[in-house]
Amino acid sequence: MTQGKKGTITLTDNENTVSVHSYAAAVGKMEGDGPLGSYFDYVSKGAQLGEPTWEKSESKLQKYAFDMALRKGQLTREDVSFYFAGDLLNQCTVSAYSARESNIPYLGQYGACSTMAQTLAMAGVFSRGNNSYCAAITSSHFCSAERQFRFPINYGGVRPPTAQWTATAAGCCITGTEDKSPYLSKATIGIVRDMGEKDANNMGAAMAGAAYDSLSRHFDNTNTTPSDYDGIFTGDLGQVGSDILKELFIKEGRDISMVHNDCGLMLYDRNEQDVHAGGSGCGCSASVLCGYILPGVESGKFKRILFAATGALMSTTFVQQGESIPGISHVVEITHERI
Amino acid sequence: MTQGKKGTITLTDNENTVSVHSYAAAVGKMEGDGPLGSYFDYVSKGAQLGEPTWEKSESKLQKYAFDMALRKGQLTREDVSFYFAGDLLNQCTVSAYSARESNIPYLGQYGACSTMAQTLAMAGVFSRGNNSYCAAITSSHFCSAERQFRFPINYGGVRPPTAQWTATAAGCCITGTEDKSPYLSKATIGIVRDMGEKDANNMGAAMAGAAYDSLSRHFDNTNTTPSDYDGIFTGDLGQVGSDILKELFIKEGRDISMVHNDCGLMLYDRNEQDVHAGGSGCGCSASVLCGYILPGVESGKFKRILFAATGALMSTTFVQQGESIPGISHVVEITHERI
Repeated sequence: MTQGKKGTITLTDNENTVSVHSYAAAVGKMEGDGPLGSYFDYVSKGAQLGEPTWEKSESKLQKYAFDMALRKGQLTREDVSFYFAGDLLNQCTVSAYSARESNIPYLGQYGACSTMAQTLAMAGVFSRGNNSYCAAITSSHFCSAERQFRFPINYGGVRPPTAQWTATAAGCCITGTEDKSPYLSKATIGIVRDMGEKDANNMGAAMAGAAYDSLSRHFDNTNTTPSDYDGIFTGDLGQVGSDILKELFIKEGRDISMVHNDCGLMLYDRNEQDVHAGGSGCGCSASVLCGYILPGVESGKFKRILFAATGALMSTTFVQQGESIPGISHVVEITHERI
Repeated sequence: MTQGKKGTITLTDNENTVSVHSYAAAVGKMEGDGPLGSYFDYVSKGAQLGEPTWEKSESKLQKYAFDMALRKGQLTREDVSFYFAGDLLNQCTVSAYSARESNIPYLGQYGACSTMAQTLAMAGVFSRGNNSYCAAITSSHFCSAERQFRFPINYGGVRPPTAQWTATAAGCCITGTEDKSPYLSKATIGIVRDMGEKDANNMGAAMAGAAYDSLSRHFDNTNTTPSDYDGIFTGDLGQVGSDILKELFIKEGRDISMVHNDCGLMLYDRNEQDVHAGGSGCGCSASVLCGYILPGVESGKFKRILFAATGALMSTTFVQQGESIPGISHVVEITHERI
């Protein structure tokens, strides 16, 4: 890896290639019923996956995504050198418990809902440095997340229109150094940005500024414009955050709207599914990446895309103490051809 | 970085050097009253540091450690390319809020009390890859951690003899690529190990197996024995975990006891200070590393040491659900001369 301007890492260049060797997405029933349902490798029949607790259900989704990515890549666990994982639960505990079964050196990552881009960038850096396979895995689960961050499901609280729906989903990428599509080209690491948002039910607004900052730095550091990409996928700003992001770019004369889409808006059909402003959670962008975006890049349907996962670095404790919610977004550039 | 056997990364070799450019430790009053009190760069008069909440007090400790490490290294924030930080609080929130003030690309790390070794290894990898300065920062605070993991302080619960005392402390290393002591030689990334311990008041026992595993792999992967080091510092196994670790090594015919010490046992005077089995928390090993160990390596008092921070990947939710507590330990080899 070599560093360009602030925060941008080069993964694939003239001398080295870093690519996604294989990938898989495992999702819950509701996500399977959504518009991308047919793209996922595994759709569960319910939210429990035969486990006694939501936390264990979520661990199982991570495990499924990892095992399927290995199988699709004709690898075994022994072939993977480092395991980067993260989730939303306190103490990143779902990831720790799934890593416990892997017997692979583990580095826990936390970037809230931006974690898929963070783990992917880290796995890419370690693959390049070690010429080895690395795993990048994240997950979320509606029932475990709602209880922890807002209210227990049984409480039946009414959610405001700005609220997003935490996806029950997991995604896994196995990175390697083969000279093949999809290539991990570059990554721009997020800087924490705070828009002063204090409403835990308006994550999109809290994250939009961070996505704007990271995408802007990526354009500047790589001398590109939005029109150089045929897809800019934020995840998971939802409707509220996506609108703010596009406005921020239009104000400075850059228009991303023709190539922009948001994983939180793609995962569900908002006319049919009651998800309010869209999907969210580490597993939201992870499953859209591994189910829909990466196959598109691999086949050449997408030539060059940006995956800009977004996270609200929210703590219920800090929010209760009156603090605003900082956001972060990590950007990974993924290409069909080596550039 | 190049990879040797499972999980060991080489940072300094014939072609490249990675070193700790500067470092600083900031601690609370009780830690300042302990046997290492005079080694720390900053000792607060109380636990609050003038802040209205314990979480903000802890954020301030991180900020102090970072600012002092910059000053001691004659750097400014603009000189630092990546900011790796972590802590024990839910959603790694203290680190996110301290990163918010830094304006530096941020990668949140979570390895429970092993996080200082994790951030240091990651900062070393990124310094080497980018030929740049990177920050590795962790913290903990007795009052914020006790409330979250066990009971609020005001409850006055009686702590069992196996319990450890979460240190109010923070440490920061700025890594770089200068050819100077202390060198970051190698790092062995931890594999999650579970000894079946279910008692949230016996973290030492939960972590000892992970320390044993990572140290064993480090010895094997680097063809070294305990006698090649003049210090093996685990942190923070406390008395219970340290005894288990030494026994595990003796069983296989390797004796680490002549060079072993534990950050949790070094930070406090257990005859005078009521800390039961010893200190713990991300800030415990971080402050002992930055206050005591690194100056020793820099001066040549220590020629070659292992810093093996240990973490209990505990979640109160999982423990309440009857799950055992997995442990992890990351090992960083630090040397006075380039080897």
